[in-house]
Amino acid sequence: VSIDLNADLGEGFGLWRMADDEALLDIVTSANVACGFHAGDPPTMRRVCSLAAARGVRIGAHVSYRDLAGFGRRFLAVEPDELRDEITYQIAALDGMARAAGTHVSYVKAHGALYNRVASDPHHAAALIEGTRAFVPDLPLLGLPGSVLLSLADDAGSPTVAEGYPDRRYTAAGLLAPRTEPGSVLSDPAAVSSNAVQLAERGAVASLCLHGDNPAAVELARATRAALLAAGSEIAAFS
Amino acid sequence: VSIDLNADLGEGFGLWRMADDEALLDIVTSANVACGFHAGDPPTMRRVCSLAAARGVRIGAHVSYRDLAGFGRRFLAVEPDELRDEITYQIAALDGMARAAGTHVSYVKAHGALYNRVASDPHHAAALIEGTRAFVPDLPLLGLPGSVLLSLADDAGSPTVAEGYPDRRYTAAGLLAPRTEPGSVLSDPAAVSSNAVQLAERGAVASLCLHGDNPAAVELARATRAALLAAGSEIAAFS
Amino acid sequence: VSIDLNADLGEGFGLWRMADDEALLDIVTSANVACGFHAGDPPTMRRVCSLAAARGVRIGAHVSYRDLAGFGRRFLAVEPDELRDEITYQIAALDGMARAAGTHVSYVKAHGALYNRVASDPHHAAALIEGTRAFVPDLPLLGLPGSVLLSLADDAGSPTVAEGYPDRRYTAAGLLAPRTEPGSVLSDPAAVSSNAVQLAERGAVASLCLHGDNPAAVELARATRAALLAAGSEIAAFS
Amino acid sequence: VSIDLNADLGEGFGLWRMADDEALLDIVTSANVACGFHAGDPPTMRRVCSLAAARGVRIGAHVSYRDLAGFGRRFLAVEPDELRDEITYQIAALDGMARAAGTHVSYVKAHGALYNRVASDPHHAAALIEGTRAFVPDLPLLGLPGSVLLSLADDAGSPTVAEGYPDRRYTAAGLLAPRTEPGSVLSDPAAVSSNAVQLAERGAVASLCLHGDNPAAVELARATRAALLAAGSEIAAFS
Repeated sequence: VSIDLNADLGEGFGLWRMADDEALLDIVTSANVACGFHAGDPPTMRRVCSLAAARGVRIGAHVSYRDLAGFGRRFLAVEPDELRDEITYQIAALDGMARAAGTHVSYVKAHGALYNRVASDPHHAAALIEGTRAFVPDLPLLGLPGSVLLSLADDAGSPTVAEGYPDRRYTAAGLLAPRTEPGSVLSDPAAVSSNAVQLAERGAVASLCLHGDNPAAVELARATRAALLAAGSEIAAFS
Repeated sequence: VSIDLNADLGEGFGLWRMADDEALLDIVTSANVACGFHAGDPPTMRRVCSLAAARGVRIGAHVSYRDLAGFGRRFLAVEPDELRDEITYQIAALDGMARAAGTHVSYVKAHGALYNRVASDPHHAAALIEGTRAFVPDLPLLGLPGSVLLSLADDAGSPTVAEGYPDRRYTAAGLLAPRTEPGSVLSDPAAVSSNAVQLAERGAVASLCLHGDNPAAVELARATRAALLAAGSEIAAFS
Repeated sequence: VSIDLNADLGEGFGLWRMADDEALLDIVTSANVACGFHAGDPPTMRRVCSLAAARGVRIGAHVSYRDLAGFGRRFLAVEPDELRDEITYQIAALDGMARAAGTHVSYVKAHGALYNRVASDPHHAAALIEGTRAFVPDLPLLGLPGSVLLSLADDAGSPTVAEGYPDRRYTAAGLLAPRTEPGSVLSDPAAVSSNAVQLAERGAVASLCLHGDNPAAVELARATRAALLAAGSEIAAFS
Repeated sequence: VSIDLNADLGEGFGLWRMADDEALLDIVTSANVACGFHAGDPPTMRRVCSLAAARGVRIGAHVSYRDLAGFGRRFLAVEPDELRDEITYQIAALDGMARAAGTHVSYVKAHGALYNRVASDPHHAAALIEGTRAFVPDLPLLGLPGSVLLSLADDAGSPTVAEGYPDRRYTAAGLLAPRTEPGSVLSDPAAVSSNAVQLAERGAVASLCLHGDNPAAVELARATRAALLAAGSEIAAFS
């Protein structure tokens, strides 16, 4: 089987830094790059795009509610029409920075609270889809299998990419167990690796999301990649 | 003679408004649209682009220092490399909103303190030029005749468009008299119209900048346009 | 009867303006001053405080979710502890500007989406109360009669001031009819004035909120004040 | 001799962090706390104030140009009157957070580009002094010996505290050598400690500024403190 690995990158702002972007870029095949609404300033965006381009890693626009102070992790009751335009703005801005680095935006993924919201809210999901299509009609959208987002994107004729979270526990129904539940976030390399291999082999997702916001997380991402390769998976960008 | 008329548009933010965008769009041939750094939010940007497209008015990226609180009117000692990337970001973001409105960015003009700075500072001027060229190499740059900006843009192979200010007094040397000098900003329609006609006929500029940030200014802009037509000028976008 | 009149003031940001602050300050007895989170920059805050002090108008902190782009009109799912601290920050900052103008903050009122939220959400209501009490324990809180905010403030030992909206229709149960319902916002001076007189005489509220975000609204506010005086009400700050 | 040690604290924003605040608070006697203009959000400000209060460390307002994206390190040509009001706003806001933590603001120090500017620009220096005096007339101002700031503060009747930088090289004239000069920033513990002891014993400064924005810097700060104690200095807040 072939599986894509994606991770959040470029999540600094000004002098502040979040993850170890370079380490992650050696692990993943798709980079979700912050566009300035929850993190990401133009020099950071351009630098991450350059580093990604040099490694053949694809760039995705990691779009967010406008919320630097909250890192995009809080739901914001923005009007759908405004959200739609904010999505177009973010994708276009990142595409400009990618262009300056000799590459371009290949897909769109929602960040934080927006990611969670579009799993079930058809208004914000439609805003994300329309804002993306206003930029480029056939840009793929990453999201949770079974989410309202992927279903509406499908209806709209937008390509979709289902993704899994090897470091999260799933319910019997196949949904992500809430982070607030004890044991819902996994940190044991063996458990996460085994999840990754199963998710890849089951074939319901085309990409796996890895985290890298601390040194242990980068180690875990590296171990997960190694486990996938050891299990015979091919690691390659989704098509 | 043929002359282009440009004005600053889309200078609101959220609920706040500045000029009467629709009135100005009936007067000018080129719209300098704020990109979010001194003013301009995505819905405003898209709406102005739509209104401009409907009237055949061209869109320019009105790029600025990052300074919403100061409306881009204060010099900011940003590093040239960072400024360069911020320029690319702004142009690309506006181009995305223009694309959503069925049009695109046709030129770049600096706003406020950046406009003044690039007349004489080669570092910030080069940043503006490089940031523009990173997006599209042949995008024209508007600026003051004799400015460092236009001279460096020329050297870099970027098209340039010289512009004049009919509501500003010029020194004998052909420079703008400082705003702080009494009498340097004109409000008499006859004087402004006469300046506009002279600037157009002298041929040293291809565009005239009109203002519209209050009802009297819009009236003045309308009178200036009428005077140019009465004097036999053709009003058309620069080529 | 004696009734207080309050209105939202200082709602500009940088060069942008909203209401006619000076006109409103001649009408009201209490000024809800924006503190920088939905509107309001330090010079504007200080100027409004000076103008208010010169007229004997009281200053209230008009606290908001952190949302300049949305003017504080969108619900933001901020953590209660963070909201609490943001409330303290805003009140303290405004009190500093008031102190520079020779006065001080006399009460607290929530703005926009936060105002609506604390009518029913006990977590955000408690955050508003605790954030206020952390600054000064006995600062009065303005709010809707029957709201969760006033009830919890009461429990906490904070003084409360119930306010009415003469330009809004009330349901039979005494609640505000939603703005989205046709006819829920009144603009007829006779109707608004009559509501104001009734609200004052009924005695369930100690303050009336007037609006002034356009010239017609200022006229309406002036007419409402005149009607109250004609009906024999005394217009004075709540005690 | 008795010497105060100060350091910059609370320089995170939202999820982003800068220095190890707790480690530094065990080393210094005065904490320069960011107020939200270059860094610092209300929960961070309150937490740092609480931690400082628990250790008997004094709180100073670390005021800045409004520049989150640039961490206050870029000169901004803000009008002096606006800067004055922004200073009052920042001090007052921090004092509110300090009050919530059971303490208060004891002094004011400029951050970054503003710190450098007020060493020589009388307009911005006067704005800093007046903005401070508008909050509390007798709040001490920290600054460079020989700076325009300290001289004007003296004239205005504001208490001043001269500070030294043990990790910076000084010119023969007693000025700080520019950071851009090779060798102007010291990292050798022996050299920095020796500078600290000399600065303390020479008596021209009442406080020493230590840095802590990376683990090595915290180590250096700890070593400097130890060297001062070993040399017989008393480490105590300036009076």
